[in-house]
Amino acid sequence: MDGQFRDGETSLQTYDLVVIGSGPAGQRAAVQAAKLGKRVALIERQRRVGGVAINTGTIPSKTLRESVLDVIRIPQEREFGGTRPRRGDISVGDLLSRCDTVMRREREVVQSQLERNGVRLFCGLGSFQSPHVLRIDDEDGSQTLEAAHVLIAVGTEAGMPGALSVDHDRVLTSDDIPTLRVLPHALTVVGAGVIGLEYATMFAALGVEVTLIDKRNTLLEMVDREVSDALAHRARAMNVTFRLGEEVAALRRGRDDSVIVELASGKRFVSDHVLLSVGRMGATATLNLESAGLEADDRGRLAVDVHCRTPVPHIYAAGDVIGFPALASTSAEQGRLAACHMFGVPAESVPELFPYGIYAVPEIAWVGASEEDLTRRGVPYESGVARYREIARGQILGDLDGMLKILFHLETREILGVWVLGTQATELVHIGQAVMALHGGLDYLMRTVFNYPTLAECYKVAAYDGYNKMRALAAGEPEVIPQPDEERKAA
Amino acid sequence: MDGQFRDGETSLQTYDLVVIGSGPAGQRAAVQAAKLGKRVALIERQRRVGGVAINTGTIPSKTLRESVLDVIRIPQEREFGGTRPRRGDISVGDLLSRCDTVMRREREVVQSQLERNGVRLFCGLGSFQSPHVLRIDDEDGSQTLEAAHVLIAVGTEAGMPGALSVDHDRVLTSDDIPTLRVLPHALTVVGAGVIGLEYATMFAALGVEVTLIDKRNTLLEMVDREVSDALAHRARAMNVTFRLGEEVAALRRGRDDSVIVELASGKRFVSDHVLLSVGRMGATATLNLESAGLEADDRGRLAVDVHCRTPVPHIYAAGDVIGFPALASTSAEQGRLAACHMFGVPAESVPELFPYGIYAVPEIAWVGASEEDLTRRGVPYESGVARYREIARGQILGDLDGMLKILFHLETREILGVWVLGTQATELVHIGQAVMALHGGLDYLMRTVFNYPTLAECYKVAAYDGYNKMRALAAGEPEVIPQPDEERKAA
Repeated sequence: MDGQFRDGETSLQTYDLVVIGSGPAGQRAAVQAAKLGKRVALIERQRRVGGVAINTGTIPSKTLRESVLDVIRIPQEREFGGTRPRRGDISVGDLLSRCDTVMRREREVVQSQLERNGVRLFCGLGSFQSPHVLRIDDEDGSQTLEAAHVLIAVGTEAGMPGALSVDHDRVLTSDDIPTLRVLPHALTVVGAGVIGLEYATMFAALGVEVTLIDKRNTLLEMVDREVSDALAHRARAMNVTFRLGEEVAALRRGRDDSVIVELASGKRFVSDHVLLSVGRMGATATLNLESAGLEADDRGRLAVDVHCRTPVPHIYAAGDVIGFPALASTSAEQGRLAACHMFGVPAESVPELFPYGIYAVPEIAWVGASEEDLTRRGVPYESGVARYREIARGQILGDLDGMLKILFHLETREILGVWVLGTQATELVHIGQAVMALHGGLDYLMRTVFNYPTLAECYKVAAYDGYNKMRALAAGEPEVIPQPDEERKAA
Repeated sequence: MDGQFRDGETSLQTYDLVVIGSGPAGQRAAVQAAKLGKRVALIERQRRVGGVAINTGTIPSKTLRESVLDVIRIPQEREFGGTRPRRGDISVGDLLSRCDTVMRREREVVQSQLERNGVRLFCGLGSFQSPHVLRIDDEDGSQTLEAAHVLIAVGTEAGMPGALSVDHDRVLTSDDIPTLRVLPHALTVVGAGVIGLEYATMFAALGVEVTLIDKRNTLLEMVDREVSDALAHRARAMNVTFRLGEEVAALRRGRDDSVIVELASGKRFVSDHVLLSVGRMGATATLNLESAGLEADDRGRLAVDVHCRTPVPHIYAAGDVIGFPALASTSAEQGRLAACHMFGVPAESVPELFPYGIYAVPEIAWVGASEEDLTRRGVPYESGVARYREIARGQILGDLDGMLKILFHLETREILGVWVLGTQATELVHIGQAVMALHGGLDYLMRTVFNYPTLAECYKVAAYDGYNKMRALAAGEPEVIPQPDEERKAA
């Protein structure tokens, strides 16, 4: 019964949970259920565990980004006798040289975690034969598993948007990035979502002329407008051309293997490569969902409730396949919640305190509400802003355009949101997250001593900025305040 | 009466507070008192405000460090076609090229802050004529101020330890670092305190052969032993030779302008330069303390109570002149506390929550107690450790030796201390600081979602590591636990 034998479809192994997909959501759910003493199987169609997060998405793009930052760091402000590599000398392969090591290590972590917890790993294509029976096909044949519960954590795959066809040579998806031999002169990125923006700004930082096209008129709708505007401003300063509210009508092969991009508005231009980062589809096409009584939407995605449960009560879904935010960190949390809920274990999760990170250049991170959210909900708030250039560490780093914004309730001074753009944004946001979660409020940030010189000092400067605006509201004499850090603001 | 006129010693201006020294402690106290509506004068003997923090200590060394990290970052793990500068090509001047900009900016911030708050700035050498009368001498003559309260925030200056004399050419103090034209081949650092260690490891990171000598047998006594041991290990891996429990008997000029270092134990070796970072003395020698009824100790330092008050009730002292920890951040806080206390304004401060940072390579930061502290106090604690190499961001950065350690109470699970060694340590420690201050405990760190991939994830991994050790204490079956992050530990 432990799955060591197989003889076509005659064996029927039973599990408390069968997970499909070994990305962050699937692996976390599988280990969580195993820790609850459940029999767990995990089906992965790739020969390697980890999903998009480890193998083609998060880890490769973040490793590439770290290399990009290394390359651009020196020439940005300083020279030490070393020579800055010219764009033509840089291959994407070199930039990704650390990537294999990192991916291998991360896969080992996952693999070992699954093994130690007794999760049975099946390599093959999983699909529903009936709501409780899953079929696994691989090159040697097929077998079936019986599942009391199922978690669909299959993630997404690059979709082929409309008329545009990928040739993996000049017209690429993000999976093709590692195959680029040299940096292009001009790159067109179609789709200004998180992935599109990350790659667009990374390449722009290296001196590539980037055009970023999106049919939506607004960049990053979930992001606070001041922050997305600042990111757009920074991207334009790196020669990114934004074509928002535009659609690609056709891509044609030009001379010298270049691509001629034609927009629906009639604009035309030439690009060395086109990166399509639109239309990632939930990878549900091969799941035979109808046998489970489920249906995906037109983008292959599954609808779930707050417990990640689909309309079929014993089937759950988590991770990118359920849509926003499609981040490794939140996907893992969804997997944990799903596993706890299906086995009746109470598990709390506070999505309002989830941190979000976009690893563009510069990076963005946030926790809580945007100004637009709060305005929509009619919450009386004030903001406090610190610019990196106002503090010593920002000057030392030469990151003069970074910023940290705190949104707080005008009456209770509770922190409602923290937005960071610039160096270390994805790390710094966790300070604000802790203060929000533990209800420290604006006062905690005003009275706290921070290491000098750190970027974390932005919290104190921003808190005083907000406090002063709030105080200006009050009638009569200015109140005595205990600390003068806000003074840096006006300097 | 506003000090615009001066006629020798005949004018006697009166102030609620006269501050001596414009470093972090002095400036913060002056602005705080001004905000309380007090008449404040500040005496600075240099032509520039900011003290050691801005002008010769913190800012220059941290700017140098950032450049050092830039230089060593690329060759450490990656190559991109650019060439790594060789040690002989690097001048300290180049490494410090950003420094002037940063210092100027920081001085502007201080200057403008003082002006806007109506703090009267006097440039000259301040000294006591009597407990309430201060005399200011400059090249044009002298004047006196009457002070209801005085804050001594004069900081420290390089002392001349015993027989060793500084020639500012081969035998240097840290103030001479910017004058080095090329990197030495071999450098001897005398004094393994914070400053000595910072410079020793910075130069070692650049390939300089460093010998670090201290008469104490223990490195960084205030630091958790596991962390200081790890730092020593890392330093040795960069070819730093430690000579602890040793004293320099003599420095003699050798051939080629080198220095022959003779230790009391009889050891002898040759060094290009010797950096003396011992014996910083409180800069109290010129204050004429006896006229105020005060006395400094043999290192020029003043004793104060918890409110930074000296034995003479209207005279306070803050910053480096009162000794440990002699950090810009804590000095500023002391200045604030002193100003509040002298004018009867309640101000709380929780030294147990002060963060500490040592900008060595790698950097160290902490908040709260060390294992040794807790053992001494008989507090039952457990520790949870995460290594940077265990998390994706550590792998991406190639910082495989970084670590984060959480100490927590075995019964309450309150966090008692957080220790970080490695990239971003001085920033990361503020997450733990917030959790400690707001009593989130180990449970907060276990249930929080962190951005992926970040170093902040170390908190969660360390929390689970600690939780598992604690659980292992309990008899019987392992308890069901809600999240499987601890699994990374064993991988």
